[in-house]
Amino acid sequence: MPEFFNVLPPAQALKVLLDRLEPRPVSPAVDVPIAEALGRVTAQAAHATEDLPSFPRSAMDGYSLRAADTFGASEGAPAYFTIVGEVPMGKPAGVSVGTGDAALAYTGGMLAGGADAVIMVENTQKVDTNTIEVVRPVAYGENVVQPGEDVKRGEVILPAGHYLRPQDLGGLTAMGITAVSVAAKPRVAILSLGDEVVAPEATPAEGQIRDINTYTISALVEQAGGVPLPLGIIKDNYEEQTGSAIRGLDMADVLVISAGSSVSSRDMTAQVIDNLGQPGMLVHGLAIRPGKPTVIGLVNGKPAFGLPGNPVSAMVVFDLVVRPTLYSLSGCANPPEPTTVTASLAQDIASTSGREDFVPVRLKEDQGRRVAQPVFGKSNLIYTLIRSDGLVHVPLDRGGLYAGEDVSVRLY
Amino acid sequence: MPEFFNVLPPAQALKVLLDRLEPRPVSPAVDVPIAEALGRVTAQAAHATEDLPSFPRSAMDGYSLRAADTFGASEGAPAYFTIVGEVPMGKPAGVSVGTGDAALAYTGGMLAGGADAVIMVENTQKVDTNTIEVVRPVAYGENVVQPGEDVKRGEVILPAGHYLRPQDLGGLTAMGITAVSVAAKPRVAILSLGDEVVAPEATPAEGQIRDINTYTISALVEQAGGVPLPLGIIKDNYEEQTGSAIRGLDMADVLVISAGSSVSSRDMTAQVIDNLGQPGMLVHGLAIRPGKPTVIGLVNGKPAFGLPGNPVSAMVVFDLVVRPTLYSLSGCANPPEPTTVTASLAQDIASTSGREDFVPVRLKEDQGRRVAQPVFGKSNLIYTLIRSDGLVHVPLDRGGLYAGEDVSVRLY
Repeated sequence: MPEFFNVLPPAQALKVLLDRLEPRPVSPAVDVPIAEALGRVTAQAAHATEDLPSFPRSAMDGYSLRAADTFGASEGAPAYFTIVGEVPMGKPAGVSVGTGDAALAYTGGMLAGGADAVIMVENTQKVDTNTIEVVRPVAYGENVVQPGEDVKRGEVILPAGHYLRPQDLGGLTAMGITAVSVAAKPRVAILSLGDEVVAPEATPAEGQIRDINTYTISALVEQAGGVPLPLGIIKDNYEEQTGSAIRGLDMADVLVISAGSSVSSRDMTAQVIDNLGQPGMLVHGLAIRPGKPTVIGLVNGKPAFGLPGNPVSAMVVFDLVVRPTLYSLSGCANPPEPTTVTASLAQDIASTSGREDFVPVRLKEDQGRRVAQPVFGKSNLIYTLIRSDGLVHVPLDRGGLYAGEDVSVRLY
Repeated sequence: MPEFFNVLPPAQALKVLLDRLEPRPVSPAVDVPIAEALGRVTAQAAHATEDLPSFPRSAMDGYSLRAADTFGASEGAPAYFTIVGEVPMGKPAGVSVGTGDAALAYTGGMLAGGADAVIMVENTQKVDTNTIEVVRPVAYGENVVQPGEDVKRGEVILPAGHYLRPQDLGGLTAMGITAVSVAAKPRVAILSLGDEVVAPEATPAEGQIRDINTYTISALVEQAGGVPLPLGIIKDNYEEQTGSAIRGLDMADVLVISAGSSVSSRDMTAQVIDNLGQPGMLVHGLAIRPGKPTVIGLVNGKPAFGLPGNPVSAMVVFDLVVRPTLYSLSGCANPPEPTTVTASLAQDIASTSGREDFVPVRLKEDQGRRVAQPVFGKSNLIYTLIRSDGLVHVPLDRGGLYAGEDVSVRLY
């Protein structure tokens, strides 16, 4: 029986591919309004065009004044200030303070002219309509956000290759930036192989099954910020598969072929990818279970993956190698982390050292602790994964995991 | 100075609201095709309309045969089988096996008639073109996925209120289901208050700042599966705010007002929400920092929130109370977990017992360990959060956290 040539741990296999990829996004940048920019990746750095805040802002409700006038003030020896006015919210300071003067200040409002600190209203006492006493000193700059303290004009506010989060969008609008240049979403052509596979709309004849992988892989592409381009179901025929693969690479940035990635005589994905262009196949076989029969290639600058036909294996391999590749193609330096949680393992899991295992588990609460219960049933069935909350990862160097151990569960 | 009446821990405050909410989605369900269903919440349970698989499938490449014929087989005393044909992929079994017969089987293909097990090709030896020897016994059902083993006809495959993940979509197409009834996305009306706030397109005069919260909150709503309906910037005027709030509640399922949620004379959100309808304000003040000045209300069946004007506080409060409310409105039983990671704290963080604190940190790698470095600068500035990877949570019952401790970081 034929065997895999160069079975690699997934991280190493991914590195083999990424080391050969162009470091910059393959697709041209596009401008999108802020309201559509969530989860996109910046194509260029953004700079602060002004100081933020642009004026000295009060961080508290109270009085703006000159800090030096409060030095030595105490309960026993209060300092007295004359209220010379207020600075309304959203207005320039229409009032100035001299020695012994104070002006009403609101959180977010501007300081009075000549003021260099704000005393909180809680630390003052009204003596009469125009006078307050201050019972503790404030330091120079206390309760004040200085101009440029948040961001200084000219500073890089977001680097290129930045995954845009809600706060980043708010930071851009604070600077008056209402559209942003982002990397085009990587387009991923998806082929689903197999003489036994029919479309979901069809009624399978005996021996046939409906397509699963086109839909799980499309959803995974979408989650990873890509655009899925499903090309349908292709028969177990070398010429048809090659033709569809060429068409896919023409229209997309990445090719994903599901099934046919193993080493039997019916498995042609390795050969198809290797013959599509240069350098061709880079890796055949990952040191993981499920997911061993995987092909990773590079075809004239475009990544091409052969994922196992088993839907659970395909999802695991997508997560470990396709997802990071999609972020890399967008030039993304801070891709969102996969969601993992820690749980106590409910029962032993056997494994083989030298291989990473992923075992479906269900999470439950037991006396306030989170427990990961391995899901019984064949681990490579789609409904085993649907009944699971995630997969426990058995690291490469561990022969298994023990009941009661804290384990890391990748939520799916 | 006025004070907060009933400051509650966020989980308890959320419960006050959710206990009074109708248990079912407020909006009618909609049918969407599978390709648009990722991240939506099922409106009703889906049942298996057939067994999956619908025929006995081989889980391996090898030969299908009758298990009983292999009993006692060993290297020393092999059993011999006559190859009577093969079952091609995607075809019904055109061949049957009797005693001493075997038929070529492929992974995912159907078993031959009369066969009840598959022997892996690795455990056979070809003797001549038509004969194999088998050197170990296989059990009844070994290497076979039985009809209905993945899912049985009539079984609930997805319950109502299920957040749809990639594998769920694959499970539906496997069953021939190409569209799914999902809860309508909750619509969230967003008002941004403040005499000092101007639109991002405007050039702020002295004392003014551009709107941030409309954009961060809209993005957070989108992330939580809702539809943001930004209604613009409203002045610090009770009648204007009330009018806009009524308009918002008319068009949306949830109202979010940013700013004006504290207790000073300029803070009118509590009063606005309380006067909108029944029962009005439920909670004023959360035992967290940042985020204390928060209003939670219920207005004629619709949740209404007053978030702090500070953008960092608004994000923290959104995460703790608005996000879970949106999932609850969709009837979602398994909302996606916030992404948190464990890291070693780089320096002490002081806090106050009886309050939950959230402190911005940057994550870095140090000798293979993940370290959380608190970000210097005023924690309530938007760019402090932009420069951070997430927030460390200081629990209610802890007076602070110590350098070197393992802490939980909520990634933002």
